[in-house]
Amino acid sequence: VGNVSDIDGLPGLAEVREAAERLRGVAAYTPLVEFQILNERVGGRVLLKMESLQRTGSFKFRGAYNRITRLTVEEKARGIIAFSSGNHAQGVAAAALLAGTPALILMPDSAPTIKVEGTRAYGAEVRFYEYSMTWAREALAHQLAAERGATIVPPYDHPDIIAGQGTVALELLDQARALNASIDVMIAPCSGGGLMAGCAIVMSRQSPGAKLYTVEPLGFEDTARSLVLGKRVANEPGACSVCDSLLISPPGKLTFAINYPLLAGGLVVTDEEVADAMAFAFHRLKLVLEPGGATGLAAVLCGKVDTSCKTVALVCSGGNVDAATFCSVLSRSITN
Amino acid sequence: VGNVSDIDGLPGLAEVREAAERLRGVAAYTPLVEFQILNERVGGRVLLKMESLQRTGSFKFRGAYNRITRLTVEEKARGIIAFSSGNHAQGVAAAALLAGTPALILMPDSAPTIKVEGTRAYGAEVRFYEYSMTWAREALAHQLAAERGATIVPPYDHPDIIAGQGTVALELLDQARALNASIDVMIAPCSGGGLMAGCAIVMSRQSPGAKLYTVEPLGFEDTARSLVLGKRVANEPGACSVCDSLLISPPGKLTFAINYPLLAGGLVVTDEEVADAMAFAFHRLKLVLEPGGATGLAAVLCGKVDTSCKTVALVCSGGNVDAATFCSVLSRSITN
Repeated sequence: VGNVSDIDGLPGLAEVREAAERLRGVAAYTPLVEFQILNERVGGRVLLKMESLQRTGSFKFRGAYNRITRLTVEEKARGIIAFSSGNHAQGVAAAALLAGTPALILMPDSAPTIKVEGTRAYGAEVRFYEYSMTWAREALAHQLAAERGATIVPPYDHPDIIAGQGTVALELLDQARALNASIDVMIAPCSGGGLMAGCAIVMSRQSPGAKLYTVEPLGFEDTARSLVLGKRVANEPGACSVCDSLLISPPGKLTFAINYPLLAGGLVVTDEEVADAMAFAFHRLKLVLEPGGATGLAAVLCGKVDTSCKTVALVCSGGNVDAATFCSVLSRSITN
Repeated sequence: VGNVSDIDGLPGLAEVREAAERLRGVAAYTPLVEFQILNERVGGRVLLKMESLQRTGSFKFRGAYNRITRLTVEEKARGIIAFSSGNHAQGVAAAALLAGTPALILMPDSAPTIKVEGTRAYGAEVRFYEYSMTWAREALAHQLAAERGATIVPPYDHPDIIAGQGTVALELLDQARALNASIDVMIAPCSGGGLMAGCAIVMSRQSPGAKLYTVEPLGFEDTARSLVLGKRVANEPGACSVCDSLLISPPGKLTFAINYPLLAGGLVVTDEEVADAMAFAFHRLKLVLEPGGATGLAAVLCGKVDTSCKTVALVCSGGNVDAATFCSVLSRSITN
């Protein structure tokens, strides 16, 4: 690890641009929004790229659609398989429905109801695995894929997935330009690292002065630690977090090969900081963010990076949260 | 009533454009968003103008700022007074703070906590009146204004207020043009009628083919009835609704003079339809809407207008809802 060119087959800006062409008119061109109340609070300018308003409620649709539409007619006919805690599941299911491809999704039995129902609503078959067996889900997917002749659509570690997620940054930079804003800092939530890897490809070329940070929940900061150590390390077992969409480890091989040389570092937020950010988003911004989708907002509200007089772009990556979880978070947070 | 030109001093397109100049860089240029899932549900194209994301959480800041910045230095020094159930209160308080003008706001004792706290957070003095005495609030405001030499900033029936709210439609049409969308139907929530009057001025000139509808909660459909009767009538006493921001009657004199000749009619929604729309906005769109702000969405979800193959613009007018009310609404709504 250490140099992007060490690994063959990594996507570049051209692949992200091709993905943007495929997604045009299919994925939502999500708004980049700004709030005076947030700017005043952090003493800088914060631009929120609202991927919670993306089709299926998270950015995951972008990569999934970009991957699935590149399959051959034969591959599409045999179907696809994905494993996911929920957002990738819904993204794949919706993309498969559009592509006319049967989809089987493996989900942990701990997945939020809203994500399971969302996945089924797009016509996908859902099979559960025990959350404690997450380490074995990839092997199970490969076994089922072999039985069915189906193609696996991985959650992050594939050039087409990474290129699809990178379209977030292409849009973001166009929208920032229209606001006369030049990005000093960009923050994206991180699980396997596909969103940030795709964005880093774009940012490093089109906005090279921007410092790029992943953000992860405490106990699941494998990417932050891997960036420090210069090698992919896994999370310690036993941690838990409300950020159901950000629990996977270690960083992807391809995503880390892209992220390691291009990122400034990895930020870490606690569940309490995430809950306060979700409450702030509700009370002050009138936005619904899921825990993982609120980690970037939590990072700036808690001063994890210097925002003073800076322009900070945040990817609000998703909004798929159960009403019960959402209301429990709001009731715990007194103020904001 | 019957002809816009019957009444002197009504604002026109020029006044709305001047308001837009004053608001540039001060009010948020709120996004116009579109959701595939909503389009599919109603069989048309729905564009949501997100005034819940406006400064102070509702469109009311636009008119208040446009009015207050037009006061003389002497008038500003003597302060302003407003009466409001909450959204106008916050808009006035924020605008007064920016203009350096002391603000006294009369609010009903039934106003949602979030609106009272929001108003105070902008430095305004809040004085409560009994909700049952709403009919007397204007007289009280005039008495206090006389005592203090202060200027009243009325909630809707003033040319500057109407012109400020009309900037919503100026932006909406520019944004729709960028999407190659031509508006067939436009729906805006209505209490005193200022938002729709301002928008109607713009729409009737720049998008004359669009049919314009107000939407009101059942029991508070004074504008719908007034439009049918051709004269301003008040609500019957005794009704109640969750839509705290849409309870005022009768329609304003100026606003009705504008709306009567330009509108296609008034839609009416029940509290249950509003609650379902708020739940739909949370679960499917990841947006926080207050009851009044969700009435337009309720109208299209419940088929109150023909949306088939139509392009419908909705103003989602506000998002100021208490967590307790919001969570109670979500818990009542099983599906969506």
